[in-house]
Amino acid sequence: MSKPGTDASLRRLRAGLVGGGRGAFIGAVHRIAVELDGQALLVAGALSADAATARASAADWFLERAYASYTDMAAAEAAAADGIDFVIIATPNDLHFPVARAFLEAGIHVVCDKPLALNVAEGEALARLVESRATLFALTHAYTGYPAVRQARDMVRSGQLGALRKVMVEYTQDWLMEPLEARGNKQAAWRTDPARAGLSGCVGDIGTHAANLLEFVTGTPIEALCADLSAFVAGRRLDDDANILLRLQGGAKGTLVCSQIACGEENRLALRVYGSQAGLEWQQQEPNTLLYKPAGRPWERLLAGQSYLGAAARAASRVPAGHPEGYLEAFANLYRAFMADVRRVALGQTPACDYPGVREGLRGLRFVAQAVASSQRGSVWLNL
Amino acid sequence: MSKPGTDASLRRLRAGLVGGGRGAFIGAVHRIAVELDGQALLVAGALSADAATARASAADWFLERAYASYTDMAAAEAAAADGIDFVIIATPNDLHFPVARAFLEAGIHVVCDKPLALNVAEGEALARLVESRATLFALTHAYTGYPAVRQARDMVRSGQLGALRKVMVEYTQDWLMEPLEARGNKQAAWRTDPARAGLSGCVGDIGTHAANLLEFVTGTPIEALCADLSAFVAGRRLDDDANILLRLQGGAKGTLVCSQIACGEENRLALRVYGSQAGLEWQQQEPNTLLYKPAGRPWERLLAGQSYLGAAARAASRVPAGHPEGYLEAFANLYRAFMADVRRVALGQTPACDYPGVREGLRGLRFVAQAVASSQRGSVWLNL
Amino acid sequence: MSKPGTDASLRRLRAGLVGGGRGAFIGAVHRIAVELDGQALLVAGALSADAATARASAADWFLERAYASYTDMAAAEAAAADGIDFVIIATPNDLHFPVARAFLEAGIHVVCDKPLALNVAEGEALARLVESRATLFALTHAYTGYPAVRQARDMVRSGQLGALRKVMVEYTQDWLMEPLEARGNKQAAWRTDPARAGLSGCVGDIGTHAANLLEFVTGTPIEALCADLSAFVAGRRLDDDANILLRLQGGAKGTLVCSQIACGEENRLALRVYGSQAGLEWQQQEPNTLLYKPAGRPWERLLAGQSYLGAAARAASRVPAGHPEGYLEAFANLYRAFMADVRRVALGQTPACDYPGVREGLRGLRFVAQAVASSQRGSVWLNL
Amino acid sequence: MSKPGTDASLRRLRAGLVGGGRGAFIGAVHRIAVELDGQALLVAGALSADAATARASAADWFLERAYASYTDMAAAEAAAADGIDFVIIATPNDLHFPVARAFLEAGIHVVCDKPLALNVAEGEALARLVESRATLFALTHAYTGYPAVRQARDMVRSGQLGALRKVMVEYTQDWLMEPLEARGNKQAAWRTDPARAGLSGCVGDIGTHAANLLEFVTGTPIEALCADLSAFVAGRRLDDDANILLRLQGGAKGTLVCSQIACGEENRLALRVYGSQAGLEWQQQEPNTLLYKPAGRPWERLLAGQSYLGAAARAASRVPAGHPEGYLEAFANLYRAFMADVRRVALGQTPACDYPGVREGLRGLRFVAQAVASSQRGSVWLNL
Repeated sequence: MSKPGTDASLRRLRAGLVGGGRGAFIGAVHRIAVELDGQALLVAGALSADAATARASAADWFLERAYASYTDMAAAEAAAADGIDFVIIATPNDLHFPVARAFLEAGIHVVCDKPLALNVAEGEALARLVESRATLFALTHAYTGYPAVRQARDMVRSGQLGALRKVMVEYTQDWLMEPLEARGNKQAAWRTDPARAGLSGCVGDIGTHAANLLEFVTGTPIEALCADLSAFVAGRRLDDDANILLRLQGGAKGTLVCSQIACGEENRLALRVYGSQAGLEWQQQEPNTLLYKPAGRPWERLLAGQSYLGAAARAASRVPAGHPEGYLEAFANLYRAFMADVRRVALGQTPACDYPGVREGLRGLRFVAQAVASSQRGSVWLNL
Repeated sequence: MSKPGTDASLRRLRAGLVGGGRGAFIGAVHRIAVELDGQALLVAGALSADAATARASAADWFLERAYASYTDMAAAEAAAADGIDFVIIATPNDLHFPVARAFLEAGIHVVCDKPLALNVAEGEALARLVESRATLFALTHAYTGYPAVRQARDMVRSGQLGALRKVMVEYTQDWLMEPLEARGNKQAAWRTDPARAGLSGCVGDIGTHAANLLEFVTGTPIEALCADLSAFVAGRRLDDDANILLRLQGGAKGTLVCSQIACGEENRLALRVYGSQAGLEWQQQEPNTLLYKPAGRPWERLLAGQSYLGAAARAASRVPAGHPEGYLEAFANLYRAFMADVRRVALGQTPACDYPGVREGLRGLRFVAQAVASSQRGSVWLNL
Repeated sequence: MSKPGTDASLRRLRAGLVGGGRGAFIGAVHRIAVELDGQALLVAGALSADAATARASAADWFLERAYASYTDMAAAEAAAADGIDFVIIATPNDLHFPVARAFLEAGIHVVCDKPLALNVAEGEALARLVESRATLFALTHAYTGYPAVRQARDMVRSGQLGALRKVMVEYTQDWLMEPLEARGNKQAAWRTDPARAGLSGCVGDIGTHAANLLEFVTGTPIEALCADLSAFVAGRRLDDDANILLRLQGGAKGTLVCSQIACGEENRLALRVYGSQAGLEWQQQEPNTLLYKPAGRPWERLLAGQSYLGAAARAASRVPAGHPEGYLEAFANLYRAFMADVRRVALGQTPACDYPGVREGLRGLRFVAQAVASSQRGSVWLNL
Repeated sequence: MSKPGTDASLRRLRAGLVGGGRGAFIGAVHRIAVELDGQALLVAGALSADAATARASAADWFLERAYASYTDMAAAEAAAADGIDFVIIATPNDLHFPVARAFLEAGIHVVCDKPLALNVAEGEALARLVESRATLFALTHAYTGYPAVRQARDMVRSGQLGALRKVMVEYTQDWLMEPLEARGNKQAAWRTDPARAGLSGCVGDIGTHAANLLEFVTGTPIEALCADLSAFVAGRRLDDDANILLRLQGGAKGTLVCSQIACGEENRLALRVYGSQAGLEWQQQEPNTLLYKPAGRPWERLLAGQSYLGAAARAASRVPAGHPEGYLEAFANLYRAFMADVRRVALGQTPACDYPGVREGLRGLRFVAQAVASSQRGSVWLNL
């Protein structure tokens, strides 16, 4: 939690980063997103296991304090009068749990990349730890930060679509269509290594984003799945593609498709929801647009930033309609909500928790585990 | 086969139509498509079981000969010196077999709407009948007639995509999202009636188009499927929605989604194919465009009618690039190929059979049967 | 007018064609369009000045009567008991007037390609001829036949856009970006030859379509223009590109851009209309879609064939929404209206004249003349 | 210039802001853009002429120093050991010149919103001032910062399009389609007031962006224009719409359209360039995409972030291809180049000046002046 004695409600917050040094694009994403609204500065980091990289990376960003290890960092920051208010974890998956534990036990709030942990058991341990303490925990399912996604959520949850019938969600990309892990690509290496990535490659890395997006927008849990996972690239140890049938609570059905070998797709995250009265469609390639398809009437194309949107969507835009916003701004919306909670806690108020946390993280880990199990058992239906 | 004694190679051909009278939009589609290239005239018909409708419909189109029944028509046309060269069957599914049999046995070539018959057994009987005779038989999987679809086929089959890895095909629409069959809609009534439509509603009506399109473009048979069929509209006796996992010969995998309750979708027939070297995307809403996505290079957008396309695609366009063509022109491309065969047969030449026939029809019936069976057995994998 | 003694209201009509033989794509377009609804057959033609081409072209389409010259054809068809009901003129521009005169004087209705004639004086003579007789005359501004264009017209004219403020219309293509006229291309040769095409190349050929589309949709005449015409290809004698400022009656302003050297554009005919309450956008590349942009509300995307459209748009579709239609169907809509008038006249009824005619043709010729004059005088404003 | 004695190359830079307080969205845009790369912090401001607003706005962003006036700020920051390295001017147009002069004369680098000044004379005075000193000056034509725009520039300038023939540029929006200036909207009030905005409303505010974008991409100056400006909203004192014919050096021609009354358009900034070998198309609504249209070959769709792009485009992306970036990131690219120069100057190096400056600003002012003059004189051609 925020330092006793400092008034986190009246100053810029101080953030730290573990992982994310030079070569890992996600580090820069976190730095930009956390600082975007002027509410925090990244001041400390243990940016790499390699000491030289860690120092150079910290210098790139003018960090005040660079650490050689996350344990040193947790200890020092907890002790410092001007220590960080929260830490950001941008390491490979196998470190999520130990790093989070170190900072949580030091009383420092945590923002952690997904998946929550290496497996369900570890995730449950982390969830217990988080829920036993007052420290805050956010999981960066950043795609939920798009204004159009928030508009979609409002429209579905307010009943504008009627009863939910059908969903289609996909996250397809192609960056692993060649065996990059055998060619020295570090990002590919850990993501295809069971010891560092967990049970699954593609489903864990991006399928969980798709599943989370679906549940975020519909407010309806996935009840069961029937999956067919593949590793198309020779020698790959984890799946790089999956086709999954879904059943949702309440009777809706659908598909979730994820792939890292879909040649030509960049980051095609796309969601469609069909109800008894209307349909909705969104995709990340045109992130500021939401298509609304009411029965028997023309499609409507809603644009982020417009005054006709609901409050949640309007609050998620920073510039007037027609000036496109993107992924960094969506990511920053998670930080905005998280940092508002950091300030609330500093003032002794109850946090709003309007961002993904350990519950969503556990759902993701179970989704991965059941997708893998279903596929291994010949595509049987398994409950989540 | 064509009339002995007439020279079908030197005149407009004569076509007849069974079904498709007033109220059935598909009748007009057939009339336009068959006449589009000036190679045939529709001259005879048994357009409705209702005699008044049959007469009125025939008058709308200035038909020379209107019949009260298809049996009368088959007999009279076979006997007439200027009888029809071929018949078009546009009835509900339960009549495909008996009508086709009547004309085939009268020695008249047949063009038949899909599905081939009411079930696999009937389809096999029809296939045997067709294959035991010299009469021609075409099945109207009309979507294969689009120039961009033919370009896609050429590109996949010539190896431009590399080894096939992943496919995604869908056909979604919403016209049955309300219980129209209970409100007097005749089109809805027979399509949701097992006695007239067969084992399946949605999978039979449009899922088979999607499956056929996939196999047409890739040249690769669907090997197995794992399906989840639903009837979302209360009281409906056949499925109106399906989510299906696919495995193709050679190792590619994918999904087939079809729905008649996807609110807001018109006739969203869309295909994506991903290989080890490139991807392709086509959808009927922009039918003249084909997206080609080579690995590591910009997407290319190919347009129907352009000189850079292959011969099959170029031959399928009637107007210069940039003047859009649509469904009727695609449909007419099937008739063009079929009628070229009618002329070949009249000249004693071997037909080219460059259009779907009984083999494709049988695959479609088996696809329906296995999708229904898989779903009933809890989404198990079944071979086709 | 229709033959005395025949009952044109109870049979397929008979059409003839002058020009449009092999090598001229527009001939096939006319044949398909006139026959599409089953209301007429093309039975006679003088398809080429070259006798062999004329004969071969007539054989391609099974024409009953092939003529060596249009004068022979006019005389023979007027005299025949089963002569044509109307003639279609698809020749280069310099022949529009003499051919139309020959058939009009023979009492045969005329459908003529635009522009109306070679120049304003000739056009006025033709208009006087037409208006002094009972024979019908249609000008093929075919783009007005699209369902979405008709919907746009209804919406603007019914006041849904409020007071008209701004218009933007373009027709850009690239087929003349090289000096094809110097390389044996016959289509290019006559279109760039002042003796055969008239005062202008690009403005006459496609700029007039854009101007007509604008006036058709808005119902508001262009009042004045200020033009800058260019010939970018070396040696070209007529303009191949134009940028034109517009002022409309009632105070709206805008631009008209046409080009035949806009590299990469196919037939980008696009219209935008902005009023005090809403905007509209249509373009031929997605012809079945109309974007409606009401002030302060989401854009709406209207689709051809849907039941929420107005009567004019609905009547212009032949297949259910979601099955795309294109240029040929739009063209056929002009013929449908014209042939309904041919039947009305045969019954002694008053024609509805719901298609472009000599008045629109004269406006087009004046538009061309004033655009050329404005440009020659250094881009001065000239009234139409 | 950078403070003597401080080492601007080894620390975050310090920025100040004049104008841009609460209610002026552009202030937040500047703050985000300048801080996005972690190279600067906004530490001081004179954010509003209203003292309470100024204080509250400074508190929102945790500014260290809030001033009541820009003159106080210039004096104090110049004198402070940790004074700002550069100032950002985000005031109405009439203050650009006096504020810039105050800071330039205090030796502080300047980033200024466009237009450069209230009129050409003032702009020339400012240009002389800037060019007589070592202080840096950047003008925020932020749309030039998009990766796809930089790719377009490279492609045109490297000759991939061949000889330039035709250009079409537009910037249309609708936010002034009602008389907001009469309803208490402060942003509308100053933009429609000649004393504060200058000679023009729409052309000055957004037409200059379009003109700058065109010249930026093509590297080819606009040589002459012929304009028709309008004020469609009753009582408005400055233009809210313009249609302009263009001629570029070297012979290309085109149109520039800008409007603030184009109902339904958000910020439709769009550019097309046609050469003798290829065309290009970009629009801000899909900012990460560039369409390349080579003669006789399929269109290519280039995506920001991809490795096949040129160096300038690649350097302008912060996240992997497929994660959309937007306006703020584009804006930040201008700051990145400017701040690199601030560091260079601090090190005694020559600045690279790879961003718009006073020369571009003067071109913009002359464009406005000549557009207004051309329109007043009845749309005559005037040289720039």
